[in-house]
Amino acid sequence: MRSNMPKQFLSFILLAVMVINTSSPSVAAQSGKARADLIVLGGTIVTMDQARRIIDDGAIAIAHGRVVAVGARADIQKSYFARETIDAGGRMIIPGLVNGHTHIPMTLFRGLADDLDLQEWLTKYIFPAEAKNVTEDFVRAGTRLGLAEMIRGGTTTYCDMYYFEDAIADETSKAGVRAVLGETVIDFPVADNKTNAEAMAYVEKFVKRWQGDELITPAIAPHAPYTVSEEHLKAVRAFSDRTGAPIVTHISETKREVEDSLKAKNASPIDYLERIGFLNERVIAAHVVWPTATEIEVLKRLKVGVVHNPQSNMKLAAGVAPVPRMLSEGLRVGLGTDGAASNNDLNMWEEMDTAAKLHKVFSGDPKVITAQEAFEMATIRGAQALHLDREIGSIEVGKRADLVIIDRDDLHQIPVYGVYSDLVYATKASDVLTVLINGRVVMRDRKLLTLDETAIKKGARLYRERVLKSLAPTSPK
Amino acid sequence: MRSNMPKQFLSFILLAVMVINTSSPSVAAQSGKARADLIVLGGTIVTMDQARRIIDDGAIAIAHGRVVAVGARADIQKSYFARETIDAGGRMIIPGLVNGHTHIPMTLFRGLADDLDLQEWLTKYIFPAEAKNVTEDFVRAGTRLGLAEMIRGGTTTYCDMYYFEDAIADETSKAGVRAVLGETVIDFPVADNKTNAEAMAYVEKFVKRWQGDELITPAIAPHAPYTVSEEHLKAVRAFSDRTGAPIVTHISETKREVEDSLKAKNASPIDYLERIGFLNERVIAAHVVWPTATEIEVLKRLKVGVVHNPQSNMKLAAGVAPVPRMLSEGLRVGLGTDGAASNNDLNMWEEMDTAAKLHKVFSGDPKVITAQEAFEMATIRGAQALHLDREIGSIEVGKRADLVIIDRDDLHQIPVYGVYSDLVYATKASDVLTVLINGRVVMRDRKLLTLDETAIKKGARLYRERVLKSLAPTSPK
Repeated sequence: MRSNMPKQFLSFILLAVMVINTSSPSVAAQSGKARADLIVLGGTIVTMDQARRIIDDGAIAIAHGRVVAVGARADIQKSYFARETIDAGGRMIIPGLVNGHTHIPMTLFRGLADDLDLQEWLTKYIFPAEAKNVTEDFVRAGTRLGLAEMIRGGTTTYCDMYYFEDAIADETSKAGVRAVLGETVIDFPVADNKTNAEAMAYVEKFVKRWQGDELITPAIAPHAPYTVSEEHLKAVRAFSDRTGAPIVTHISETKREVEDSLKAKNASPIDYLERIGFLNERVIAAHVVWPTATEIEVLKRLKVGVVHNPQSNMKLAAGVAPVPRMLSEGLRVGLGTDGAASNNDLNMWEEMDTAAKLHKVFSGDPKVITAQEAFEMATIRGAQALHLDREIGSIEVGKRADLVIIDRDDLHQIPVYGVYSDLVYATKASDVLTVLINGRVVMRDRKLLTLDETAIKKGARLYRERVLKSLAPTSPK
Repeated sequence: MRSNMPKQFLSFILLAVMVINTSSPSVAAQSGKARADLIVLGGTIVTMDQARRIIDDGAIAIAHGRVVAVGARADIQKSYFARETIDAGGRMIIPGLVNGHTHIPMTLFRGLADDLDLQEWLTKYIFPAEAKNVTEDFVRAGTRLGLAEMIRGGTTTYCDMYYFEDAIADETSKAGVRAVLGETVIDFPVADNKTNAEAMAYVEKFVKRWQGDELITPAIAPHAPYTVSEEHLKAVRAFSDRTGAPIVTHISETKREVEDSLKAKNASPIDYLERIGFLNERVIAAHVVWPTATEIEVLKRLKVGVVHNPQSNMKLAAGVAPVPRMLSEGLRVGLGTDGAASNNDLNMWEEMDTAAKLHKVFSGDPKVITAQEAFEMATIRGAQALHLDREIGSIEVGKRADLVIIDRDDLHQIPVYGVYSDLVYATKASDVLTVLINGRVVMRDRKLLTLDETAIKKGARLYRERVLKSLAPTSPK
């Protein structure tokens, strides 16, 4: 299911060992212990490694943003010392959650319009609201709001598609959050770029600026096969081939999209994209609600990442993706919230809970999508869907130290009989206590350390007034 | 949709006016203002009255456990004074949520077994666990845990079916929570009663003890038409006719139940229950997943209360109840969580969110079950389903003062464009700040006032050890 250990991973371990062996004299002063930057001590570690090890009373040593050791508390304490220690006794430590699909600035449109047909929702509310409000400053304010909400809920990596993605990268980097950020390419004028040429030039500069960054993976995001021409899709793929940038897109979200594609292109969206040579192991496809069994084979063969958005698909009545089949076929399937305008939050806990329950009732089989599988989709499988599983998605030596510490003392979590059941069916975003990304503490004991929560709320409320004013004649409620 | 104003309601208003006019001399001292026990001041009041009024910067005056005035803050302040005032400025005040279906002590089995076929789940885990563990003390410990979780999430009324219901009533009353409590009648020996005669004697005593209580409505709970004989169901109905006690039951939960009923009784469960004269306006039926259009007519004509449990029905793959049709037919339909062993929490916020989303995707129509309808099912329609809408379910003069104050300052709730959208799609249990039941503050600023949270957690964890020990040879994970 997982790729073989990559070369860079092996080199890192060698490097880590070298660092340990050659570091400063204080190592000796600590009677042979190796130095780490930070040690998380105690608690139950849900590693999500290949063996799915769960370590009671464990510990994690972190150096240079990566996990250098994970194991029993006593063993780690014997071998490592660090200036900083986080006591996680009695708590649960999990890999940071991966939100595989967002339009992060749309937090500012949260609840602007609900309970509508997709077309009406888009054309009467969302598109006009975007046309009248989306500026770089709007995008920055919405991004900060979304980042704060995601950190608070234990999401450490997200994958985005929107406009002004360079500003989103800047805000995300400043907040210390990991992300795959896709700048939109679409065949009509949008907030930041008015032509395809402008968009491609933007992406060129954007990818050059951020590639190699420890947190930000810049990407190109053709909106969907029905809003971007074949020629432009091929140019996107060529750009990705040349730069190595991932491709973020929407595929097969609604039945109508499939029917329209069959009419216009004599092929379903996935068949069409395969035919024009668009799909490969750098593509991250959101939704994929309506693939046939043959198309699932195509996605598997071409190693396409798939992001399932159960709550958005339910709310917009898009349909139920064949996720149990995708999982049994071993596809790279993650979970996402979609934008806050169609969800209406960025809460991965509710997404896990919903994924497990939705597929049970839809298939009539209460055994499909177990709690463990739902949790996998939010962690290691989510990392696979973003093609980042060499770096994140589990707590393993050599991987980035993206960790979440969960409080286990709230009434709704008591008692606990099984770890995955507790995580998926009982734990809430409000139980997230402390969050580390790339070894850096970005939330400690529910206090955000890299974002100014008061200023973010104030800014969001100001934008609410502007949005309402801009839509005044057609305001929904 | 709502019943006409009942006589007792009118009498109450008269009483309230009399109380105001004849109360102590301090009325005069406050320059003609009437005395209330408590005033909730400021905030947005979501009344759920017949006009669905939403009052910005409102206030609510409470006396003798009931709402005596609700309106604009300035008007209430002009007319009432009270020793105690709760400042709800900037917050939202809603009617207390109604959880229409629980097995409250099963909180102690939360997450004991998941992702299994209903039969396997019941026969391999739940029934053995119950047989080996359920005592009156277990029921008390589980009830306290469930009460604490429900208060924290803004539930002020619940409807239960379990064993030792007299102990549940005692704990519920002590915690100051409102409930319809149904003592189980079932045709095999259970934890508290070994025969039908014993159960009927228990119910007789139980109903006599609690009838007339301000908080507790004692009820009789025949488990289901397939576990209670026709003779015993008729005796239940006769008991209810004689005492006026409501009847809590499960009807038409699974397709198999319907098929078995058709084979054994040549009638679906609802047809069968109508034929034997069981159904009336005192029946509260949980689930009702598989009714035909004709059967929906029967439920409507006989004024049966229906409780929809979307998350439980999803997790056990029971099916999707035809709730949009039930609502458009004007049935009395509420929402419930079911027991924590099959959900795995008692969270009405997630139930509302799920109800709205599930029916959209299942029907393919994003306009069914609007946010407002979902909120109605958790409040006024939920009260109708329990046949308690003369007393609770909305914030109106004469009704019981069951109120919940919601904090609106968490990141996931910002910005707000529509009240019902905010409540159903964005608000979480963790946003509940203060809870009043029958005019009494049972949680203030997230601190439980009628329950000892530390002792409850300790007790629940002790029972976890016992449950695991009792199941040791067949422990699930």
